Amino acid sequence: MTDRITPDWIALHVAPDQMTAWAMQDTQVLAHTHSPLDPSGLDQIRQDQAAFEAMVLSLGRDWDVGAQTRVLTGGLDPADYIWAGTPYRPVPCPACAETVRDIPATAFALRAIQGLSQKTPADVMSGPETTIAGFLALNPKWDGVICLPSPRCTIWAQVSAQEVVSFQTYMTGELFALLSQHSILRHAVQSNDFDETAFDTALEEALRRPEKLAARLSEIRAETLLAAPCASASRARLLGLLIGAEIAAARPYWLGTQIAIIANMDQASPYSRALTSQGAPATIADPARMTLAGLSAVHRQL
Amino acid sequence: MTDRITPDWIALHVAPDQMTAWAMQDTQVLAHTHSPLDPSGLDQIRQDQAAFEAMVLSLGRDWDVGAQTRVLTGGLDPADYIWAGTPYRPVPCPACAETVRDIPATAFALRAIQGLSQKTPADVMSGPETTIAGFLALNPKWDGVICLPSPRCTIWAQVSAQEVVSFQTYMTGELFALLSQHSILRHAVQSNDFDETAFDTALEEALRRPEKLAARLSEIRAETLLAAPCASASRARLLGLLIGAEIAAARPYWLGTQIAIIANMDQASPYSRALTSQGAPATIADPARMTLAGLSAVHRQL
Repeated sequence: MTDRITPDWIALHVAPDQMTAWAMQDTQVLAHTHSPLDPSGLDQIRQDQAAFEAMVLSLGRDWDVGAQTRVLTGGLDPADYIWAGTPYRPVPCPACAETVRDIPATAFALRAIQGLSQKTPADVMSGPETTIAGFLALNPKWDGVICLPSPRCTIWAQVSAQEVVSFQTYMTGELFALLSQHSILRHAVQSNDFDETAFDTALEEALRRPEKLAARLSEIRAETLLAAPCASASRARLLGLLIGAEIAAARPYWLGTQIAIIANMDQASPYSRALTSQGAPATIADPARMTLAGLSAVHRQL
Repeated sequence: MTDRITPDWIALHVAPDQMTAWAMQDTQVLAHTHSPLDPSGLDQIRQDQAAFEAMVLSLGRDWDVGAQTRVLTGGLDPADYIWAGTPYRPVPCPACAETVRDIPATAFALRAIQGLSQKTPADVMSGPETTIAGFLALNPKWDGVICLPSPRCTIWAQVSAQEVVSFQTYMTGELFALLSQHSILRHAVQSNDFDETAFDTALEEALRRPEKLAARLSEIRAETLLAAPCASASRARLLGLLIGAEIAAARPYWLGTQIAIIANMDQASPYSRALTSQGAPATIADPARMTLAGLSAVHRQL
């Protein structure tokens, strides 16, 4: 028989592919757990608050959670969670908000951190602002650019004096997923290996002529037919083309400033490699640790 | 009771989305028919020659077709049709080949036109070379650039003295299909209308900063959340961004030369509009008519 854990609050982070929960006592972690989210599961909790609450309770099934337990969460994008309704905060604004939104809930006391919006160019984020807040809580004097790659998109955020000044989202992760899983290229790029040389060559080509993306994609297929490269080279080439175009477009963000990449190593590595090739080395930070630090920082302010 | 048609040969064109057959007497069309190809039907005829022959017979079910009937076809890409094995012809070479390949078949006498390949940049086409050959048969003194948009890809071919000198394929059609049907943008772009102003604005943005594609795609979603544009504007914006990047990349092809677009009007119009905005007006030609002219030209040479 195991001892039940009684958190005085729960830190929760909802990403499009995973939900993570930490059982907290003040800023100390008593336990943590996470669960992958597949697209249908994600759709369900976005549309049905009861399903969301049930999933949180299931994550914390070894914890004592009651109607009074405070659950502080980031990532409830008002665009996606039809029951959440948390408005965005327009940038420039502090990464770490002093206000959160109480969302009526039955299983626990739910509070949501507000995402950020930008008018021009139009952009929104919900979840990454908490990760940024954590990085700035741990690095309070840090100014520069934070790059947050994820399987769906990559966000570049300019931060100064603890504020998010501006940000821009690139749909690079989703383009890679669509092309590698659903396009005519899908058979050519099935590999778990990473060919660094092919990545570097494609990166260089994309940085030089980023507008040629649709032609280079077509070349990947033609090369498969005419020269039969290995799939690991074609896959790395696809990633290099997409990240190269992004790095070219985001140059005004990263040029001549400090850069931090917050992502798991498999997501962070190609960005780090690409930036290093441009003479712009980046610090890599762990996303779970930063997100928890962000949730804790918000909790302390409340 | 209808009179049976007895073609002395059949002109056949296989595109990824449609198969078209003409019952011919020399260069005269006795009848024509076509059938859409869905992805599973296409997969089947690519892997199974008997299924292919059955589909041709079904297309010509009102025609007298026997083992001696010659069927001349374009579009049997050796990369896709595992039973076809027709090699490519490397460019530069005449658009209209004097040699075709006999493919052993049981239902009729099958002859395939060879597609074209290019070593650098790596590229292949199978089917469009017949359409180009038809355009050049009808316009024998024509030099310039031929643009062939299709739902899957767009080919730009430089032709001179009846030869295809070079060509480049852009995966623009497939990117548009993936993004409008399978991406996070799919709900934002569901419309059958075309917003010319939104197209022109996106085209101009993409021509100026083509590397920003992945950021502009993300903006389409954010604009939907923050400004609620109508879906026809978002859809035209998506198309304008993709075609704008392509037009920017293909500039060495179209700048300062005659241009012909061979495509149905719905495919040709946005390209024509984009090129006209750059001071490069294009002639638009009917693809079925050009393809039949190409098949007839090859038939006459045999």
